[in-house]
Amino acid sequence: MKRYNAYLIDLDGTMYRGNERIEAAGEFVDKLASKDIPYLFLTNNSSKTPEQISEKLEQMDIKSSPEHVFTSSMATAKYIRKQKEGARCFVIGEEGLHHAIRREGLRISDQDCDFVVVGIDHDINYEKLSIACIAVRNGASFISTNSDVAIPTERGLEPGNGALTSAITVSTGTDPIFIGKPEEIITEQALTALGSSKADTLMVGDNYHTDILAGMNAGLDTLMVFTGVTPFADYPDLAKKPTYYVKNLYEWMEKM
Amino acid sequence: MKRYNAYLIDLDGTMYRGNERIEAAGEFVDKLASKDIPYLFLTNNSSKTPEQISEKLEQMDIKSSPEHVFTSSMATAKYIRKQKEGARCFVIGEEGLHHAIRREGLRISDQDCDFVVVGIDHDINYEKLSIACIAVRNGASFISTNSDVAIPTERGLEPGNGALTSAITVSTGTDPIFIGKPEEIITEQALTALGSSKADTLMVGDNYHTDILAGMNAGLDTLMVFTGVTPFADYPDLAKKPTYYVKNLYEWMEKM
Repeated sequence: MKRYNAYLIDLDGTMYRGNERIEAAGEFVDKLASKDIPYLFLTNNSSKTPEQISEKLEQMDIKSSPEHVFTSSMATAKYIRKQKEGARCFVIGEEGLHHAIRREGLRISDQDCDFVVVGIDHDINYEKLSIACIAVRNGASFISTNSDVAIPTERGLEPGNGALTSAITVSTGTDPIFIGKPEEIITEQALTALGSSKADTLMVGDNYHTDILAGMNAGLDTLMVFTGVTPFADYPDLAKKPTYYVKNLYEWMEKM
Repeated sequence: MKRYNAYLIDLDGTMYRGNERIEAAGEFVDKLASKDIPYLFLTNNSSKTPEQISEKLEQMDIKSSPEHVFTSSMATAKYIRKQKEGARCFVIGEEGLHHAIRREGLRISDQDCDFVVVGIDHDINYEKLSIACIAVRNGASFISTNSDVAIPTERGLEPGNGALTSAITVSTGTDPIFIGKPEEIITEQALTALGSSKADTLMVGDNYHTDILAGMNAGLDTLMVFTGVTPFADYPDLAKKPTYYVKNLYEWMEKM
């Protein structure tokens, strides 16, 4: 079996479920560290800063630092900066997105915007949607951190960022550019941040439609784990299979 | 030319634009009244009560009473009542929708709902969308007053109810039943309220995609006016033409 020199690792469903660490997560990351194999946690969560996410991992005894975290908000801000340095952005989103936009030297404004940027926002309201719709109709580029339509919570599946984004899409008739998994944009940027090549890097995740497709879309080998969203029962029906699959990461550690 | 014994008349773009009366609107309605021809104002506006809308018309010197107004909220509430008397409804919407739901003896609740009902709501928030998504996933029937995606305002096109509704559609993968124009549901109900037959009733409106199609979908003759949304320049390209068209209602009054 091929040895990989770098790993991109999903978080929710792969390292933890909600606030509960998934079996083997800590040991798996320790093994990467002990072998000096570089890794990045790759998450569609746009609401948190890398510092906040790293703190959560540390609290679960999963080895991490902010430099090990790459979010859809970071990928979004880097993508916009590449289009236009210092661009004016109208932002719907939470702390992680605002933080990432500012860190890339972009300006946040609700007037004369170059970009409308949408991430999950639990304080969404009609005024924010209105400003976004009018700006998109006036020619602002329409960017969304990720297309996830639902978020699992204790009381059920709440609307995800893809659902909020659709209000603007439907009103304006303009499709956004999505940045997060399964798009290759976030994967390509993570590889750049990691300084590794496609051929040497393995994408690890539980969600076929985001994690595994993100790896495939960018041309990476993929490892699917069955500790999260996609059940093993779905495996036989997957049109394009991941490169590898394991029940959990203990199985993979034996092969590393 | 055929004489019609009853009229269904659109409001915005046909009787007024914003707060400004459209030429001939008052005289046209006076003529209907003087000839004892029954009429109903048929509007996709779900936010106002018939009393509020009638008052606005009276202030513009357009003859009206609450009994002359039929809103998408009224049609929605009547539709639900027909499915289930006293049904429990989770309501996203403004005064007009809450008012209509209660007037039909339905119950408003955020738990164990039979129906999720969505109308334009300038106080939309994440919690409302969450409750709606979870209820729809739990089996509640999903109803939306109308599918309009944009609302013209002084600063531009703001999101309409169809845009807000899409957040729930996309998150749950469930399509709503739309009630308002261009659906035939609202037209059929208005005919019942008016006590007139399809053959004897004329649908009058400015918006081809809502008013005129609503008439066509229900099998009514239609009169298109060019005082609102659809410009005359679009007329040659309309696949299915309205029965009649006039520049404004003065022209029609000469033929009545």
